[in-house]
Amino acid sequence: MPKIHGPLDDNARKITGERLQSALVDLIDLSLVAKQAHWNVIGSNFRSVHLQLDQLVSAVRDHMDTLAERAVTIGTTPDGRSTTVASETRIPQPDPGYLRDDKVIATITDALSGVVERFRGHTQATAEPDPVTQDLLISAAQDLEQQHWMFEAMR
Amino acid sequence: MPKIHGPLDDNARKITGERLQSALVDLIDLSLVAKQAHWNVIGSNFRSVHLQLDQLVSAVRDHMDTLAERAVTIGTTPDGRSTTVASETRIPQPDPGYLRDDKVIATITDALSGVVERFRGHTQATAEPDPVTQDLLISAAQDLEQQHWMFEAMR
Amino acid sequence: MPKIHGPLDDNARKITGERLQSALVDLIDLSLVAKQAHWNVIGSNFRSVHLQLDQLVSAVRDHMDTLAERAVTIGTTPDGRSTTVASETRIPQPDPGYLRDDKVIATITDALSGVVERFRGHTQATAEPDPVTQDLLISAAQDLEQQHWMFEAMR
Amino acid sequence: MPKIHGPLDDNARKITGERLQSALVDLIDLSLVAKQAHWNVIGSNFRSVHLQLDQLVSAVRDHMDTLAERAVTIGTTPDGRSTTVASETRIPQPDPGYLRDDKVIATITDALSGVVERFRGHTQATAEPDPVTQDLLISAAQDLEQQHWMFEAMR
Amino acid sequence: MPKIHGPLDDNARKITGERLQSALVDLIDLSLVAKQAHWNVIGSNFRSVHLQLDQLVSAVRDHMDTLAERAVTIGTTPDGRSTTVASETRIPQPDPGYLRDDKVIATITDALSGVVERFRGHTQATAEPDPVTQDLLISAAQDLEQQHWMFEAMR
Amino acid sequence: MPKIHGPLDDNARKITGERLQSALVDLIDLSLVAKQAHWNVIGSNFRSVHLQLDQLVSAVRDHMDTLAERAVTIGTTPDGRSTTVASETRIPQPDPGYLRDDKVIATITDALSGVVERFRGHTQATAEPDPVTQDLLISAAQDLEQQHWMFEAMR
Amino acid sequence: MPKIHGPLDDNARKITGERLQSALVDLIDLSLVAKQAHWNVIGSNFRSVHLQLDQLVSAVRDHMDTLAERAVTIGTTPDGRSTTVASETRIPQPDPGYLRDDKVIATITDALSGVVERFRGHTQATAEPDPVTQDLLISAAQDLEQQHWMFEAMR
Amino acid sequence: MPKIHGPLDDNARKITGERLQSALVDLIDLSLVAKQAHWNVIGSNFRSVHLQLDQLVSAVRDHMDTLAERAVTIGTTPDGRSTTVASETRIPQPDPGYLRDDKVIATITDALSGVVERFRGHTQATAEPDPVTQDLLISAAQDLEQQHWMFEAMR
Amino acid sequence: MPKIHGPLDDNARKITGERLQSALVDLIDLSLVAKQAHWNVIGSNFRSVHLQLDQLVSAVRDHMDTLAERAVTIGTTPDGRSTTVASETRIPQPDPGYLRDDKVIATITDALSGVVERFRGHTQATAEPDPVTQDLLISAAQDLEQQHWMFEAMR
Amino acid sequence: MPKIHGPLDDNARKITGERLQSALVDLIDLSLVAKQAHWNVIGSNFRSVHLQLDQLVSAVRDHMDTLAERAVTIGTTPDGRSTTVASETRIPQPDPGYLRDDKVIATITDALSGVVERFRGHTQATAEPDPVTQDLLISAAQDLEQQHWMFEAMR
Amino acid sequence: MPKIHGPLDDNARKITGERLQSALVDLIDLSLVAKQAHWNVIGSNFRSVHLQLDQLVSAVRDHMDTLAERAVTIGTTPDGRSTTVASETRIPQPDPGYLRDDKVIATITDALSGVVERFRGHTQATAEPDPVTQDLLISAAQDLEQQHWMFEAMR
Amino acid sequence: MPKIHGPLDDNARKITGERLQSALVDLIDLSLVAKQAHWNVIGSNFRSVHLQLDQLVSAVRDHMDTLAERAVTIGTTPDGRSTTVASETRIPQPDPGYLRDDKVIATITDALSGVVERFRGHTQATAEPDPVTQDLLISAAQDLEQQHWMFEAMR
Repeated sequence: MPKIHGPLDDNARKITGERLQSALVDLIDLSLVAKQAHWNVIGSNFRSVHLQLDQLVSAVRDHMDTLAERAVTIGTTPDGRSTTVASETRIPQPDPGYLRDDKVIATITDALSGVVERFRGHTQATAEPDPVTQDLLISAAQDLEQQHWMFEAMR
Repeated sequence: MPKIHGPLDDNARKITGERLQSALVDLIDLSLVAKQAHWNVIGSNFRSVHLQLDQLVSAVRDHMDTLAERAVTIGTTPDGRSTTVASETRIPQPDPGYLRDDKVIATITDALSGVVERFRGHTQATAEPDPVTQDLLISAAQDLEQQHWMFEAMR
Repeated sequence: MPKIHGPLDDNARKITGERLQSALVDLIDLSLVAKQAHWNVIGSNFRSVHLQLDQLVSAVRDHMDTLAERAVTIGTTPDGRSTTVASETRIPQPDPGYLRDDKVIATITDALSGVVERFRGHTQATAEPDPVTQDLLISAAQDLEQQHWMFEAMR
Repeated sequence: MPKIHGPLDDNARKITGERLQSALVDLIDLSLVAKQAHWNVIGSNFRSVHLQLDQLVSAVRDHMDTLAERAVTIGTTPDGRSTTVASETRIPQPDPGYLRDDKVIATITDALSGVVERFRGHTQATAEPDPVTQDLLISAAQDLEQQHWMFEAMR
Repeated sequence: MPKIHGPLDDNARKITGERLQSALVDLIDLSLVAKQAHWNVIGSNFRSVHLQLDQLVSAVRDHMDTLAERAVTIGTTPDGRSTTVASETRIPQPDPGYLRDDKVIATITDALSGVVERFRGHTQATAEPDPVTQDLLISAAQDLEQQHWMFEAMR
Repeated sequence: MPKIHGPLDDNARKITGERLQSALVDLIDLSLVAKQAHWNVIGSNFRSVHLQLDQLVSAVRDHMDTLAERAVTIGTTPDGRSTTVASETRIPQPDPGYLRDDKVIATITDALSGVVERFRGHTQATAEPDPVTQDLLISAAQDLEQQHWMFEAMR
Repeated sequence: MPKIHGPLDDNARKITGERLQSALVDLIDLSLVAKQAHWNVIGSNFRSVHLQLDQLVSAVRDHMDTLAERAVTIGTTPDGRSTTVASETRIPQPDPGYLRDDKVIATITDALSGVVERFRGHTQATAEPDPVTQDLLISAAQDLEQQHWMFEAMR
Repeated sequence: MPKIHGPLDDNARKITGERLQSALVDLIDLSLVAKQAHWNVIGSNFRSVHLQLDQLVSAVRDHMDTLAERAVTIGTTPDGRSTTVASETRIPQPDPGYLRDDKVIATITDALSGVVERFRGHTQATAEPDPVTQDLLISAAQDLEQQHWMFEAMR
Repeated sequence: MPKIHGPLDDNARKITGERLQSALVDLIDLSLVAKQAHWNVIGSNFRSVHLQLDQLVSAVRDHMDTLAERAVTIGTTPDGRSTTVASETRIPQPDPGYLRDDKVIATITDALSGVVERFRGHTQATAEPDPVTQDLLISAAQDLEQQHWMFEAMR
Repeated sequence: MPKIHGPLDDNARKITGERLQSALVDLIDLSLVAKQAHWNVIGSNFRSVHLQLDQLVSAVRDHMDTLAERAVTIGTTPDGRSTTVASETRIPQPDPGYLRDDKVIATITDALSGVVERFRGHTQATAEPDPVTQDLLISAAQDLEQQHWMFEAMR
Repeated sequence: MPKIHGPLDDNARKITGERLQSALVDLIDLSLVAKQAHWNVIGSNFRSVHLQLDQLVSAVRDHMDTLAERAVTIGTTPDGRSTTVASETRIPQPDPGYLRDDKVIATITDALSGVVERFRGHTQATAEPDPVTQDLLISAAQDLEQQHWMFEAMR
Repeated sequence: MPKIHGPLDDNARKITGERLQSALVDLIDLSLVAKQAHWNVIGSNFRSVHLQLDQLVSAVRDHMDTLAERAVTIGTTPDGRSTTVASETRIPQPDPGYLRDDKVIATITDALSGVVERFRGHTQATAEPDPVTQDLLISAAQDLEQQHWMFEAMR
């Protein structure tokens, strides 16, 4: 099987690849949870929440693609299949059915809290082995933390 | 719990809602499988396959959102959470790791064959209970079948 | 007086023309009612309702024009004059003066309920005499039903 | 009932509000008459008249919205409902059915003559009580008078 | 020889493929006839007819491509070669040389009448074997019938 | 020191220049106050208020630049330095720290009330000495008064 | 000879028409003088002056067209033929051949001074007979005076 | 006086410069004549002629600027002042006042005939001394001859 | 029958008209052959060939329209009807049915070789009678030869 | 009073918040100083300096907004009110009145020197407590230092 | 080794290929010299020269690509490697380090003089062997000579 | 000789300037090598490789400009002249003449390997002396490494 020869040594590639894989699972599931809420939200704040969630999805999908391509670039292979995401995600899942707007805001704020905290860890862990990956993680963290503020501010 | 009062009677809503939910699971997982291949593909046809897969993802995401919003519109609640997708998907899953370009073409052609066949069923089943949903399913089927031709033509 | 020779026989043209005329009156008056609310709405949800109404007006005006041109295309003459609209409309009218945001949401949801129901009838009635017109009505129904969900979700 | 506190005193608001309401009725009905002609026009000049009418509708709808929002801004409530328009309009109505192109040109020229004359009156009447409203009316008058020239030049 | 495996059974593919091939010949020749008129038209209505013909060509070319790709998608092979078009077209051909504007309008109206009638047949014939193809044919028919009205209205 | 020779005599320039300077201070400080609220707002209406404030800032910055350039054009020199703005502003200042959404709406409505009233004065005062400046002030007043309505409507 | 029936009485039309004709001659010749300088300018400030002149030409051409169309709108016939412009212009003409950048700046500043002064007169003269024309003249004056400042500031 | 050192020898520059100057006078006056007709045209073909003339003006202005800049580039100084244009133009001038649409078509066709013939001469004369200028003249000739066809076709 | 009076004498018009007619037949048939291949191509290089063919069609259609309009401009009447194209084309025709990608590349390279050679002849033949037409043919030749390189490079 | 829970501990938030507040004051005042110069600059280099200053303002406003929103995101509340800016700014203030172009260049270069130096400090101070904020500060520093070069290069 | 079969005979290809190779070296090195000056220029005219150089680079890069692709199209292989450019360039090289603006203008004017003169030779030499290449060279010459004027005019 | 006063001390400026100069030589030569391959590539993968190379060139040119301007910003003077590039480049050079597609992929992959490795060194070396430069180098490294993956994946 051919293999991409990224710019990192084996140890750095291993550490960085694991962090990217973890981040990828978070972002894919976050996009699914946000879409779930985007579709099922009800309440007087429907329109604001519905639109804000689509901005979140759009940002998350961009970072998801960038980080997965970074994983291949350094010589690892990202895994974003549904079974992987379902079994590895650490994002608390919303109930099925309608979701009241205030419930959505609380759910997404909590989901983002966890993701933000894990990205902080990824950022620190990749600083030494791969500053390029770290820079991409910082950029994703910036958007995720900004979204966290916006949802929290709506409470 | 409040509830959206869509334009259908109970029976029509039930039939249509089940078809939309089934279609939604197919499209979400198809987007994840296509992204997985988009990232991990290798081989001399890398660029063509990599780009064609992103066109597929883009079309699939648009239809996914339209159909899920249709589900809420008729008074049901779509479920696109990762655990639901992982447990209900009928799309054969690619192996982890690198995927040779010809393997990707075969995998996606097969995945599309199954989805196309199921959408044929959805189209027939919704003709009577909800022609509006049927029209959206036909529009999705058209894109999915066109993508099926393009991947099959690459073999 | 010259006359456009559309693709339908006399009976099909008569049935289809009457349905298109009925739909046209609904859409013109819906656009006027929505603008009335767009201008006079007050309340803490002002901005969301004000903007959502303009999206509704924009969609309604597009379908209005398409359906009226379809009427000429099949050889009938649409009537969208204010006196015709005022005397034939079945949309309940808002009171003059300021309209509280929750009142607007209820009023528009009700107006859309009626229009959606009548479009269901048009869709069935034109299936046999003119599938092209039916397709346009289905497309309009899709947008109208989606708007109905969005306003209902805000309640 | 809450109330918008515009920048005018009671007398100025009353005069300006009445002028804006009168202008609004003219513009809404003008847009409906122009659309009616846009759809039903026939004759060798069909294309030019059909397109020119849509430019007229587009300009009229922009001014209609601006003036209605001005009415709310100064603390009055515009009334653009179909029954109000139908009963208060002073624009001569076209016959139903096909309209020959030269007939359309004459009809629209006459309609515009009346509207232009009434806007002259509005412009003078609002100069003192509200120069901001006057400025919007002048801007609308400029487009209406330009359209009047263009239709008259086609005769 | 490899072969595309479309979603239809043999009988449905045969019926649908023949209809698409017939539609393709009509649209290719219609685009050539309309261009012929676009270039050779003279008369006081030159500009309107010249421009309207280019709108027709643009719409026809889009549908031509969509229908031909649909033919491959279902597993047939469209034939749009000049000899095929020349021998199979049923569109009456204009004389060579200059074409007066009123002659062009009559010629194109007649050409569209025939095409519209044949598309009605295609739409009915494909309803059962392939609703996806039918939907594309209805969409083409809508544009062709609208163009027919516009040219007829110019007479 | 060279000097721009504007189109006004000394007295007209003096009156107009003072009005423009006063308007400039109002607009610069209004943009700073609106940004302050844009950043620090919290509450369930966060998204609507946050976005509406940015529309306000955008409109205010455009008028600010136009009026300051008008001041140079007539031969005076606008002063928009922070110390000037801080000492001359008549806009009531928000407290530091978080601002609840309803508080923001009240604060901005009040700020706009004052600015609108002062612009009314500027409009009257410049009518005779410089109708060009007056026209720019009327245009700014129109946007400011429209924003005032929108914030007041949210209460 | 047919005639456009503008909204003004005979006296108002005569006064306004003469002012518009005078403004038209000024603007056409100003555009020719500015182009002449745009082409023949030399000197270390070449680029700035060359580009600034094209901004001037662009603004002048827009106002020229607007004012000429206003003239037809009110029922007079603008005269912008080269012999009329050459014999009636009051703008001092540049010498043929190369023009040093500082010479261009002085020439255009002087040309603009004269035009600005005459537009002041037009603005006052049309206030009573036609406020719509006055509004267009004020808008042109604003751009002309702004350009005057910019060229003067370069000295 | 400094001087631009173009790529031509003295004789080539002299010949080319004279041709460019002649072409420039033609194009400036053609743009003025076309604008004069654009404003004063009346008749049933008003809209088509009015719009076609603006396309002509737009094309002519582009070539005018290109050719004048070419003149400076080769070291001559173009003269586009109104007195030069008025005294040197060979384009027959329209009468003042309204111009019937058929009269406009004849006038512009004649004007274009003359310009086209002179550009043929310029093209031949510059082939040897400056192929770059010839290429620009050919490009201008193509547009002018195309416009000539379009106006002649309207007769 | 009226006639367009182009800028050429009888002999030049005859020579140029024949060359343009020959070029027109080539380009129309080339666009049909390329579309035929665009639809029926299969093979691992499907995507590259499919897309490259659409770029070819797009370029060919643009030149086709330009050259046909040039033919009318010089006073001849282009003939692009299907029977004319089918009987006069010199482009070798592809077989019906699927076309393997390497077969398509060879077919299109050969078709382009012939067209390029004939355009060389047209370019030489029109140099003297009509340099404007020659310039358009050179521009078309440049694109056709570039496409020839690209298809040949794929072999 | 509710509070945004940013991703930092108390100490990190305190350090980062103070740096962001300091940066905010610098950027707001820099935008005001640059606008002041943009309006009042005179001299032969007027156009270059006037335009360059607007590029500076545009870049500064973007960073200002990003940094202020970062401050809220981490749980502090930015203070950008005019009194705060006026009392805390360390940017040397230009004199009122006209500013010669060379004076402007010197003033802005000096202002940028100070800001750049302080941003260096902020960058170092935030590296450890908040790498996300540091990344935003580095991005702002890059633009500020680039502007510093451009103004210094003009000296 | 396969080979592209361009449209020229051996002699014509040899002559044309040599001219294109020579032109390519000139354009690549001109782009490098212009970028060198773009980065290192200082002086009061910094902004104008800095921006004008980027316009030059942009135009040069476009022509460079067009001419190199033309070389492959005719069956030769362009050589644009750095060693080839460095050893074959005839453009005088600027000194390293800062370049005063007047020095840059002189350097670029001289560089352009040489390039323009050599392109004149290329244009003449390719007229007979390949008019298509000649047309591309004339188009490049036009832009290069225009840039030469603009830099010379700045002296 | 004046000098830009960047934000670094002498030692930091020296280290950073040397790294930027080295990076600049790499990027300029990489753009030339990629263009050389873009023009001379042949083989069945021609289109994919040809297009991918232009994406590489576009990304490389952007970073080249950014890094060179950074060099001036910190007070050094970048040297991008052809002789400097040719003598200092460490990128292995392709042979002249045609380049088979697999050869191109190998050549570019190798060239990118070297550049990527050297940029890793630059990134580490500039971390302490200039984090702003480091950030720009990381951003360039990200694109270069991504391109490396894409070319390697095509093998």
